[in-house]
Amino acid sequence: MKKHNFSAGPSILPAPVMEKAAAAVQELNGMGLSLIEISHRSKEFIAIMEKAQALALELTGLTDKGYKALFLQGGASTQFLMTAANLMKSKAGYINTGAWSDKAIKEAKRYGEVIEIASSKDKNFNYIPKGQDIPSDLDYLHITTNNTIFGTQFHELPQTDVPLIADMSSDIFSRQFDYSAFDLFYAGAQKNMGPAGTTLVIVKESLLAQMNTDVPSMLSYNIHADKGSMFNTPPVFPIYTSMLTLEWLKEQGGLQAIEKHNQAKAKLVYDEIDRNAAFEGFAAKEDRSYMNATFNLAEGVDGTAFDALWNAANISGLKGHRSVGGYRASIYNALSLESAQHLVNIMQEFEKTL
Amino acid sequence: MKKHNFSAGPSILPAPVMEKAAAAVQELNGMGLSLIEISHRSKEFIAIMEKAQALALELTGLTDKGYKALFLQGGASTQFLMTAANLMKSKAGYINTGAWSDKAIKEAKRYGEVIEIASSKDKNFNYIPKGQDIPSDLDYLHITTNNTIFGTQFHELPQTDVPLIADMSSDIFSRQFDYSAFDLFYAGAQKNMGPAGTTLVIVKESLLAQMNTDVPSMLSYNIHADKGSMFNTPPVFPIYTSMLTLEWLKEQGGLQAIEKHNQAKAKLVYDEIDRNAAFEGFAAKEDRSYMNATFNLAEGVDGTAFDALWNAANISGLKGHRSVGGYRASIYNALSLESAQHLVNIMQEFEKTL
Repeated sequence: MKKHNFSAGPSILPAPVMEKAAAAVQELNGMGLSLIEISHRSKEFIAIMEKAQALALELTGLTDKGYKALFLQGGASTQFLMTAANLMKSKAGYINTGAWSDKAIKEAKRYGEVIEIASSKDKNFNYIPKGQDIPSDLDYLHITTNNTIFGTQFHELPQTDVPLIADMSSDIFSRQFDYSAFDLFYAGAQKNMGPAGTTLVIVKESLLAQMNTDVPSMLSYNIHADKGSMFNTPPVFPIYTSMLTLEWLKEQGGLQAIEKHNQAKAKLVYDEIDRNAAFEGFAAKEDRSYMNATFNLAEGVDGTAFDALWNAANISGLKGHRSVGGYRASIYNALSLESAQHLVNIMQEFEKTL
Repeated sequence: MKKHNFSAGPSILPAPVMEKAAAAVQELNGMGLSLIEISHRSKEFIAIMEKAQALALELTGLTDKGYKALFLQGGASTQFLMTAANLMKSKAGYINTGAWSDKAIKEAKRYGEVIEIASSKDKNFNYIPKGQDIPSDLDYLHITTNNTIFGTQFHELPQTDVPLIADMSSDIFSRQFDYSAFDLFYAGAQKNMGPAGTTLVIVKESLLAQMNTDVPSMLSYNIHADKGSMFNTPPVFPIYTSMLTLEWLKEQGGLQAIEKHNQAKAKLVYDEIDRNAAFEGFAAKEDRSYMNATFNLAEGVDGTAFDALWNAANISGLKGHRSVGGYRASIYNALSLESAQHLVNIMQEFEKTL
């Protein structure tokens, strides 16, 4: 029986994507070969790569707006390094909203001065710092648009004239946005886009022209852009499956439709967290993530029975990250409204046992 | 109808591996979830990672010999950079056997002095340079054990006291070897191990202890080793499928059995290249690769009819690399003796048309 999958990542993907991906591992498009045994230089794979890139630009409204989409390897962790290696001339600004920003800052420090523009560390990163002045002499400003661990999300972008760089690993393709506000944004595939193993980078061509040139080949955005993400053998299966997920998203009605779907799920879950006497939300209400709802047991409540209930109810991946504790319901694009409602039912069932 | 797949990489994998991988994309081990939607911190995936690592060490005879197996991202191209970033103190030696060595040298030059110990560039890399003196003050010596493009392979290793580092992307797990001669060897998965998207690194623990410490996290062997290849989200599907391929290889009888199988296929193909008046081999006979047989048309022979023949005979991936031209039959582990014989038959059929 299929689980209700609330995993923070790798996480739920649409069922038809899984079916098509599995079929392609057996045989791709009736060509007598599996997807995973064809050359990445074959016309079949080149078509997959080009379609994935085109869909990524189309869904973010950036087709013909001077952006390129790259499919790379190494996850956001490699992007922490690549953004700084390519863009840092002397100093860059970072808004620190927790673990992922921390890691990005650590890697950037190798390449220049990091100015922590703001941080929400004072309250264990349960909010998004707002309203800060952004110096105009920074090489760039880096933000993490959604923090999976703490369940916070930028609902408005910081205003700045310097290039805006974003780690969107956990909320890319989840909502409408003026994506042209970003000069470069990146995302590990394994939340809303596909299986672990590829990283999408969308970068403004005018920014590519200003990047540092003395960068190792595999870390150079310009080399990957020049080679159409084929400088070396790309991760074929993760890219194919990402293409399938982006196709699915387009069929659903794109970001406008998925945003509505995601808001409906988030409303269900957060309303229950606020109503239910057994739980309390972790993140500040105005900064709550539409992707990861973090919540703890109310004071004095023993969660043993709740853990038994949701495990028995075919729910998976609800345990909170160790730095927050409690629970985390990740409600990514592919999660159904029914699964969100199912969780709410179990939360209510638990409340009745108190 | 299934093709006879002679692709140089990504390349043929065993049919049962493809079946099991496809099934896991639908559902892993009856757990109600797809392989690609479970957390990499789940006990199910940790077991997969540990099994893949254990099999890699077991098959190379390095279990309990002071080595660690890592599954990383970024292909051999990232290893060109990582080996130098971690190991170069002042100078390193490289034996240049063509394109892949060239790329490794280029990246290493960012980190110190590169001494090209020997090169076969004078004959378009159609042989393996031998017998050179290796200075004893090098930080390491780097070789490419098999060159996919030119179809050459080291059949004896250079004798040296300095740490021996090898790019084994295209012949790992293909033959018996004293793998303990290497201090570090690496391979992109997409030949004998699995689909594109993960890179196996096997490294001596005593070498880890001597590595440079000021290395970006994602480029640090020590960080990946300390974290059991889970510093960040690993490429789940490529690692699972690699584990399946290594299991298959063990079931076949390991490296002893596969070497025999590979030698039989190579003998079939090379004997035909040498016998057939329509073709001539590219690589020097004593340095011929057991993985990639490169051959050209004999002088004055028009290949149009041959191309039509093999295409019609359900053969795939036989076109040579542009720097050599002609043909390349990649006869990796999973290719059957029947496929090799089928190619030989077609070569003979072509000869009769001359």
